[in-house]
Amino acid sequence: VEPFAPLVLQRPVIRLIDQTLLPHEERWRTISTVGELQEAIRALRVRGAPLLGIAGAAGMALAAETGDGGNASLARAAAAIGSTRPTAVELASGAAAALEAALEVADSAARLDCLWAFASRYIARRIEEDLRLARLGAELLPPGAAVLTHCNTGVLATGGIGTALGVIRVAWESGRLSHWYATETRPLLQGARLTAWELRQAGIPSSLLPDTAAASLIAAGNVHAVITGADRIAANGDTANKVGTYGLAAVAARHGVPFYIAAPTSTIDFACFVGASIPIEMRDPAEVGGFAEVRWSPAGVGAYNPAFDVTPAGLIAAIITEAGVAAAPYSVSLPGLRGMP
Amino acid sequence: VEPFAPLVLQRPVIRLIDQTLLPHEERWRTISTVGELQEAIRALRVRGAPLLGIAGAAGMALAAETGDGGNASLARAAAAIGSTRPTAVELASGAAAALEAALEVADSAARLDCLWAFASRYIARRIEEDLRLARLGAELLPPGAAVLTHCNTGVLATGGIGTALGVIRVAWESGRLSHWYATETRPLLQGARLTAWELRQAGIPSSLLPDTAAASLIAAGNVHAVITGADRIAANGDTANKVGTYGLAAVAARHGVPFYIAAPTSTIDFACFVGASIPIEMRDPAEVGGFAEVRWSPAGVGAYNPAFDVTPAGLIAAIITEAGVAAAPYSVSLPGLRGMP
Repeated sequence: VEPFAPLVLQRPVIRLIDQTLLPHEERWRTISTVGELQEAIRALRVRGAPLLGIAGAAGMALAAETGDGGNASLARAAAAIGSTRPTAVELASGAAAALEAALEVADSAARLDCLWAFASRYIARRIEEDLRLARLGAELLPPGAAVLTHCNTGVLATGGIGTALGVIRVAWESGRLSHWYATETRPLLQGARLTAWELRQAGIPSSLLPDTAAASLIAAGNVHAVITGADRIAANGDTANKVGTYGLAAVAARHGVPFYIAAPTSTIDFACFVGASIPIEMRDPAEVGGFAEVRWSPAGVGAYNPAFDVTPAGLIAAIITEAGVAAAPYSVSLPGLRGMP
Repeated sequence: VEPFAPLVLQRPVIRLIDQTLLPHEERWRTISTVGELQEAIRALRVRGAPLLGIAGAAGMALAAETGDGGNASLARAAAAIGSTRPTAVELASGAAAALEAALEVADSAARLDCLWAFASRYIARRIEEDLRLARLGAELLPPGAAVLTHCNTGVLATGGIGTALGVIRVAWESGRLSHWYATETRPLLQGARLTAWELRQAGIPSSLLPDTAAASLIAAGNVHAVITGADRIAANGDTANKVGTYGLAAVAARHGVPFYIAAPTSTIDFACFVGASIPIEMRDPAEVGGFAEVRWSPAGVGAYNPAFDVTPAGLIAAIITEAGVAAAPYSVSLPGLRGMP
């Protein structure tokens, strides 16, 4: 069977599954322009840092397809795509890498071919790198491990086997995993909707839990490792990821449970020296007072709604990448990973 | 104006506001029997440890009203009421105290009067003790304090001014409070529904936040104290409270932010030496996969859904009660509070 892909290239358009409607409805959307792509990114129809890298690269092919394909218009498109959401570094770097490849080709028809080919290679690299990352991560787990994940870090987040969920899958297939705990991940419930959708298909013994229940689960000794993805990793190892990650890492540290980040090296931003430099997206307060069409708060109540938080490097036992497993001090180990500049 | 009361005695029945329907609908229910009361307690139509104490006492009046009022039937009723939910000690102790008072009265008509009078005094004591607790708690806050609360600990939880929310109200009235942050409190959203309902009426500058966002808010230095209620306090100070409390306390400790428990002395259970002895209620997994009529998880996904967790005494800066403020070591300070046995 062809593996599931949440974003598919169908030159001259791309098609993506609308992740805001999962798990109840599997609706595909056709995206023909950079503007449509930006709308889909802002609304989280396509999300997950590595998948946003694919979206960024594919968006450049759309830009060339619908514009004049000149240097100026492609540079404008890369800037527009890269600034659609602020925290995940791969959205901007995926678009920038595609732009760089295109600028090396002078002929406009060849440039168009180049951009579609670049997006296609980007997807293929994602799939290959995820698998390498997952194998390296699974080796870190003790036999019979119960693992806790946060948010969604599977195929829906990367286009490959996933980062943290990729580790879970490989660990399960190799007999190392006993149980998979998944937080629901308020406010947008990526865990309860997307991870649960993936875990039901995976057939791994698993439980969903309210974000609030993770601390007592860890305190009870029922979790042997916590693994999350990352939206941006600073040069010193501080890591921005889905809001709630920092609290999980803090509780894991109190109980001596290793907390791992699983992310491709493309998530490392060497231009960000420390976590405090990572821009954190603030989202609509309306996301807090309800979900979808349901409102459970009284109208007019204000809300604090950051999409991400930053986990200090000191709480991270290791950063698992496709190029190797990095440990503290990260300012030394991250640049030392294979293939790093 | 008469202050709002979530549970009202109207001999021969009691009336309570259905908290599962707030904030959208203010529906009152008439409760005529112990069985109806148990259903309301299990479904959380009436909740909050101190208010469950009132419910326990009032339930004994219903038992006498609808039964023969004899020693055996009243003892059975007290046992039934006390075991309806396991964690909050006041549900059982409120019923047991009412039983004890009734057993001192031989005449059955006088016994009925005694039980209604006992419930009425229990409510009056709640109101008076909450106010004393709130004043003691407000004095602990620095001027201009921003305070984070969890779950609902206001009038809907106690029948008085509230515990943690009582502290907030008195601090606001005395000019000490700058901002009130309230977690939404998944899975049943007591913060987003009930606390938000109370905070909108209070006119205090306030923000709701996903439970996941509390850690980064604390890390950013925007919270000067975290105050929660309690469902049961062990003799050593370990405290069971709404799930998620432990995680908040752990993060507050990392950042030197004081974490306070605000609870009446009736919440202390000297028969429980340590937190590990407190029974923790596990609730329906269905609460995790959605809310009210909305399902956001795929069907058939399992869930871990404890209603409470235990915060170790070492993370608690002080326990604020109506009888004084206790600090570590709690095994000494709690029995030393005014009026303790």
